[in-house]
Amino acid sequence: MSNTAIPTLQPAEGGTLVQAAINAVTNHIRSNGLRVGDSLPGEGHFADTLGVSRAVMREAFGALAALKLIDVGNGRRPRVGALDGSVIATSLQHAISTAQITVPDIWDVRRTIEQRTAALAAESRTDEEAARIVELAEAMAADKDDLAKRTEHDIAFHNAIAAASHNVLFIQIVASFAPLMEVAVPTAWSTRIAQSQKQVMIDRHRAVAAAILARDAEAAAKAMAFHFDDAIGDLLKAEASFDAR
Amino acid sequence: MSNTAIPTLQPAEGGTLVQAAINAVTNHIRSNGLRVGDSLPGEGHFADTLGVSRAVMREAFGALAALKLIDVGNGRRPRVGALDGSVIATSLQHAISTAQITVPDIWDVRRTIEQRTAALAAESRTDEEAARIVELAEAMAADKDDLAKRTEHDIAFHNAIAAASHNVLFIQIVASFAPLMEVAVPTAWSTRIAQSQKQVMIDRHRAVAAAILARDAEAAAKAMAFHFDDAIGDLLKAEASFDAR
Repeated sequence: MSNTAIPTLQPAEGGTLVQAAINAVTNHIRSNGLRVGDSLPGEGHFADTLGVSRAVMREAFGALAALKLIDVGNGRRPRVGALDGSVIATSLQHAISTAQITVPDIWDVRRTIEQRTAALAAESRTDEEAARIVELAEAMAADKDDLAKRTEHDIAFHNAIAAASHNVLFIQIVASFAPLMEVAVPTAWSTRIAQSQKQVMIDRHRAVAAAILARDAEAAAKAMAFHFDDAIGDLLKAEASFDAR
Repeated sequence: MSNTAIPTLQPAEGGTLVQAAINAVTNHIRSNGLRVGDSLPGEGHFADTLGVSRAVMREAFGALAALKLIDVGNGRRPRVGALDGSVIATSLQHAISTAQITVPDIWDVRRTIEQRTAALAAESRTDEEAARIVELAEAMAADKDDLAKRTEHDIAFHNAIAAASHNVLFIQIVASFAPLMEVAVPTAWSTRIAQSQKQVMIDRHRAVAAAILARDAEAAAKAMAFHFDDAIGDLLKAEASFDAR
């Protein structure tokens, strides 16, 4: 890693001075080989070095903080931010609430990604991770009549499988789906009033957990696909019944 | 959609006044059923209605613009923003440059997603979309000795397949990989000096295009997987040779 000095500020192509200031900060992070949690110079330092106003640097830092590239809390010095699925989650929620993407679109993306995290988890899980995944499937069964608790276990179940994939990008993408699940899971469950339907869903989760425990990647991916096929069917039924009101 | 009034501003849980102002704007978008391109009230209106300073609203609008939830260009009134893969791309680039995720991590995510977009494209492509995908595979072959042009065709090829999946979320996720491909594609190609190796890669792209043209979803997904297996092998070889220098 070279210790390149902060480059002279150039207005960003087709962009503003704020965008150029943002680029200068990301270049500083890259060229100094900074890592998560490392401190950055403050707004004042960048303003002086780049020859821009404090107001421009404040806007640039605000944008970087919104994108979670930097972490500026409670008057501390800014630090390099950790990859955070909440940025993707915010994009997804906006796209849904403005009708840019549909529930089936998202469900197809989740199904695709979580078939893979289930397979990777089967291959790479530690014994502790497998035990946690099984435990969460059983917790869902135990709390099957308590919607809030069951939804919480359900989200934790999918996150635990992603964690066991040991791929940080998958972990963050799956985490970014959690706010959507907080809405979609209760909607899907609302169509499963009959105990027998609830039992099918619980069995699906247990099948995923069992395949991961058995280190059977193919079975884990298949069981996850079955789970999503059920869930999207139920979700679309729920949407249709809302529309019919 | 109800015409709910802007809610009274509450400090966000564990957050700042700026975060509360951000939430007020997203609530306004949602509760008024706004769509991409619809106008929003300006900073002054929100500041008055919420009882916060212009400075707070300016910061909130800056964060919303950074996340592409709103579009504030050239002194125009702010508008509702379109889902934009560049937000995810910015997260990915930051995570790579700070060593939070590895090239194999990303490659696995791309391989997973693009197997699915290839299958969906085979099922859903229009004749125009299929013709475009075939044309781009042939353009790669024609420009196989021109790295810049070939890379451009390669990125366009993957985006065209995503477009033919007709799933807006997949389209944006694949688009978010483009900046990474601008680096990774030349790196992978740099290991294919022999004409025979270049020919293998070109044949892989042609096989994906042919399967999509033939509406064969299974073959399209398999051909895409083969392509990624080749590409990651070459990328890791390239990284190893860089490390060995």
